[in-house]
Amino acid sequence: MKVIVIGGNGTIGGPVAEALSARHEVIRVGRTSGDHRADIASSDSIIRLFEALAPFDAVVSAAGLARFKPLEELTDEDFAFTLANKLMGQVNLVRLGAKYIGDGGSFTLTSGVLSTEPMPGSAAISLVNAGLEAFARAAALELPRGVRVNVVSPPWVSETLEEMGQDGSKGMPAAEVAAAYVESVESRRTGETLDVRAFRAR
Amino acid sequence: MKVIVIGGNGTIGGPVAEALSARHEVIRVGRTSGDHRADIASSDSIIRLFEALAPFDAVVSAAGLARFKPLEELTDEDFAFTLANKLMGQVNLVRLGAKYIGDGGSFTLTSGVLSTEPMPGSAAISLVNAGLEAFARAAALELPRGVRVNVVSPPWVSETLEEMGQDGSKGMPAAEVAAAYVESVESRRTGETLDVRAFRAR
Repeated sequence: MKVIVIGGNGTIGGPVAEALSARHEVIRVGRTSGDHRADIASSDSIIRLFEALAPFDAVVSAAGLARFKPLEELTDEDFAFTLANKLMGQVNLVRLGAKYIGDGGSFTLTSGVLSTEPMPGSAAISLVNAGLEAFARAAALELPRGVRVNVVSPPWVSETLEEMGQDGSKGMPAAEVAAAYVESVESRRTGETLDVRAFRAR
Repeated sequence: MKVIVIGGNGTIGGPVAEALSARHEVIRVGRTSGDHRADIASSDSIIRLFEALAPFDAVVSAAGLARFKPLEELTDEDFAFTLANKLMGQVNLVRLGAKYIGDGGSFTLTSGVLSTEPMPGSAAISLVNAGLEAFARAAALELPRGVRVNVVSPPWVSETLEEMGQDGSKGMPAAEVAAAYVESVESRRTGETLDVRAFRAR
């Protein structure tokens, strides 16, 4: 399959692209690096990407900026930014990509454990993660031509915790998150939220 | 308690305001009718409302416009409208109201069964309903002074089904949805999603 990995050089997207490369043609897309460039907060940028790469069989998104801040410090702009990037950026990959993707193709988006396990500072991110999961459940009912959509929910990743100055051993190494993304691409699942921890445990 | 019911003349908000009136001072707020007027899609309108009504002990929202349409007919504007009204309108009641509400006060927002039980046409609404529920789970961890926030998730209401030209007997009469809202206002619950069907079943 020809698989587009958005955020394919990122902390999670990098290992995902590597795992998919074993059996598929992988195109890595980033905002500032990669085989192709795209900014998912811009519909025009998404359309240009899909026009350039069609036909393709799968889109995997490990992208989507979001703001983590104490509730009373989250501004209108922080919510707008998080909704435009992690939420609608990924929703628009599906809405706009549905025209270009091959029959039976798949979209795999990224939410995260804060959807169901919030912590102080996560109000905007918890909102968008849960919104993405519900969007996928609903959109799966309507996508044409056997096209599928799932969301992968990673736990805290060791590398991200270390970047935040915290104990990386409390997270999962990024290299171990890839299995759930591969399952979403290669299975017939649709409308699901795949909990990365459940896939590593198998 | 002094309770502000946003959408207090609506299909759900009307019976909720009536049920709360048995033990509380209720102020009904609508976009176009009611004791006070407010448009929750406007932060300025929300602030004017709270400035006029403070101090108060509880805010109940049975408001929030949203667009129900086949996925491929949902436009950018439909998503933006639904995010600005039902989602951020209700989120902003909490963010902006937290400064005005009394110690131990509560916010009660409205999502809906499409959060977890989607149907064709519900992609935007499922997204915002689940986003609201996750926002409440997260915000409950950070609200100051014992202030609480819950979301009530009503099923399809008979009156709404009838307005849509469908069989009202497949829904719940609006008068029966009020119990979950009263529980949110009067209990010590916080961060929860209250399923209206579970409360009627008691």
